Amino acid sequence: MTNPSDLSLGRRAMALLDTLAQHSDEPGRLTRLYLSRAHRDAAQTTLRLMQEAGLDSHIDPIGTVVGRLEGSDPDAPALIIGSHIDTVVDGGRFDGTLGVVLGIVTVEALRQQGVTPACPIEIVAFGDEENVRFPTNLSSSHALSGRYNPAWLDGTDQDGVSLRDALAQFGGDENGIGSIARNPARYQGYLEVHIEQGPLLEAKDLPVGIVSAINGITRARASVTGEAGHAGTVPMAMRRDALAAVAEMIGIVERAGAKRNDTVATVGVAQVQPGAINVIPARVDFTLDARAPDDAVRHAMVQDIVSECEAAAHRRGVAFTIEPFMDSPATPMDKNLITQLEDAVRQAGIAPLHLASGAGHDAVAMAGLCPSTMLFVRCKEGISHNPAESITVEDADVAARVLVETVRKLTSAELRS
Amino acid sequence: MTNPSDLSLGRRAMALLDTLAQHSDEPGRLTRLYLSRAHRDAAQTTLRLMQEAGLDSHIDPIGTVVGRLEGSDPDAPALIIGSHIDTVVDGGRFDGTLGVVLGIVTVEALRQQGVTPACPIEIVAFGDEENVRFPTNLSSSHALSGRYNPAWLDGTDQDGVSLRDALAQFGGDENGIGSIARNPARYQGYLEVHIEQGPLLEAKDLPVGIVSAINGITRARASVTGEAGHAGTVPMAMRRDALAAVAEMIGIVERAGAKRNDTVATVGVAQVQPGAINVIPARVDFTLDARAPDDAVRHAMVQDIVSECEAAAHRRGVAFTIEPFMDSPATPMDKNLITQLEDAVRQAGIAPLHLASGAGHDAVAMAGLCPSTMLFVRCKEGISHNPAESITVEDADVAARVLVETVRKLTSAELRS
Repeated sequence: MTNPSDLSLGRRAMALLDTLAQHSDEPGRLTRLYLSRAHRDAAQTTLRLMQEAGLDSHIDPIGTVVGRLEGSDPDAPALIIGSHIDTVVDGGRFDGTLGVVLGIVTVEALRQQGVTPACPIEIVAFGDEENVRFPTNLSSSHALSGRYNPAWLDGTDQDGVSLRDALAQFGGDENGIGSIARNPARYQGYLEVHIEQGPLLEAKDLPVGIVSAINGITRARASVTGEAGHAGTVPMAMRRDALAAVAEMIGIVERAGAKRNDTVATVGVAQVQPGAINVIPARVDFTLDARAPDDAVRHAMVQDIVSECEAAAHRRGVAFTIEPFMDSPATPMDKNLITQLEDAVRQAGIAPLHLASGAGHDAVAMAGLCPSTMLFVRCKEGISHNPAESITVEDADVAARVLVETVRKLTSAELRS
Repeated sequence: MTNPSDLSLGRRAMALLDTLAQHSDEPGRLTRLYLSRAHRDAAQTTLRLMQEAGLDSHIDPIGTVVGRLEGSDPDAPALIIGSHIDTVVDGGRFDGTLGVVLGIVTVEALRQQGVTPACPIEIVAFGDEENVRFPTNLSSSHALSGRYNPAWLDGTDQDGVSLRDALAQFGGDENGIGSIARNPARYQGYLEVHIEQGPLLEAKDLPVGIVSAINGITRARASVTGEAGHAGTVPMAMRRDALAAVAEMIGIVERAGAKRNDTVATVGVAQVQPGAINVIPARVDFTLDARAPDDAVRHAMVQDIVSECEAAAHRRGVAFTIEPFMDSPATPMDKNLITQLEDAVRQAGIAPLHLASGAGHDAVAMAGLCPSTMLFVRCKEGISHNPAESITVEDADVAARVLVETVRKLTSAELRS
């Protein structure tokens, strides 16, 4: 480390995370669904923390907490820092909330250092990133980027409560959603710090990494139909074993994901019929999930998988069908912001590692508004969406210092001029 | 064909099969479970048919119908011909019953030809080959070979009725079971004709084939435990994907079954946990069913499978367990009887094909009493245990002529002297 720290920023972040972790919809575990009672309580606490940090703060019509610090240059486009404060059911305290808390810690640190930003800084705490309660897709960050789909208001939760009614109950205002949309000309960038939710940083022994892109995703349902038969009486050469065929296809998927850089391909479901020890399988239904930071690479990978599976099916005399039902494009992160993060990471004495994000984030929606990038923080064993989700105070401190340094430079008068 | 036929034996066999197919425990489909009402009715009909064929006949204490024709030489060991008249639930009319009917047709033909056998001929119609109703294993043929397990009497059907009570209700006598056991010195052989229950004869365009052995079976339950993970965030090289590992193992099983003669190896069950499209599988439980006509070959095949799966598991960093729970030895058929069948098959103008039986048969039990062999008859599409089970009258006729010729030679005074 070229830059030893007293861990004060990391400790402050952990304290704020502790405070927010007290708000849960369920006793004994952390569940904070969009527009729930716990979400409202967490939003109120976040509002208070922002106000205490000297931000001009409010909860917007869709439930997002927004704190704004004006800059010295009234013409300078603002920098947004944020993430989300909703969680999955029985989730962890870092997924999302870490990025909000580090935004607040950064403003506190800049003020403590006596820095006055040239441009405005906005800290945002989105409420609907996990998309667990309603059938939405990053609805609160899409509202900021002007891409809110009004049909989302008609979606209902498992109790039949519509998003519209839940929003009214929360104290929101569906008629105000349009006014949330930011003018892209007034925003220079979006920065989001988030736990990695994967094992790469831990394996590389690095506290943080810079996200180069958020992967695009192809999802498909596939099926192989062969012929059932007596496991004792049908010779191997005469079989049309659906499971043996799918086993070969799973190998094809695995190799296709492994042979390219930063791609992953997974068969997570395989259901065998009839599924008896002495019967040759007649049919297997399985799934494909394939991701890549580049859409052309992803499409080539999926095409290879389909072609090779078709060839295997033909050779084995089984029927093969595959139906893609999701083709979500990749979101490349902004090159200039990546460079700024790299400099700050190096300044903290850390080798800047670029990695693709396999999971979706609010940055996908925000990239539709302004240049965006993300900083990932090492999390223990790559575990997330789980009470065992964990980061160290040392890593939180590194992330805070990288963010403070990046924000200081991006909001300084010299850089803006 | 060197031996054109008027199909009279085949037609007679089909007529007797029609007669016996009328006895079912369920209207509209053929179900004839051991010691049921339909079994008793079918046994009575079989008894009558044997009597009409001139056999000294009775239903023995365990429900087996036995018809005996004495020979001219009082010292000559007897030949037994038979199979079973019980069926699975919703089964076919040929599985088992064909071998009983062809025994009767053979005796009728020999009498019509004016042949008096030197040795006695016994026709047996066993009642418990399918082992569907009670937890038994070939109990009626094991009774003949002196290997009846008295614990079987305590077994119960799904209605809680014990075999003991069902036997009494049927009119049997548990105290007489010991007396059924034959003296091996008084028996020269057992011949059983049975549908193939597989596709090989149809593929080879042959009406009949000679069984060289009834395969031994290894069955095992196996499990692979890897590590669950996010399908988007865990790089391929860092995964411990249980399903990808099992896919490789299914390939190992398939190749192990295919590379040896007459062996089969099947994975019929594979259950994936947690089984979600976006989660790397953590655990897969699967089954192995491996069969071979030679026990040393089977054990070597299973050992190869286990070793290669262990190596794959080690390389992939997953845990692999396999627990064999069945090791049923192979039953080689008698070489001399095979030679007799071969001669008769050739005499019918057919190339003698040897094949292993993948399924178990009464011949397994009878081989414990005396030299035994089986003749398989081509069945449509290899289908059995199904109402679609079917053979042609032409193939039934070929089988009958092969059996008549074989029995004629085995029971002639010249051969015996």
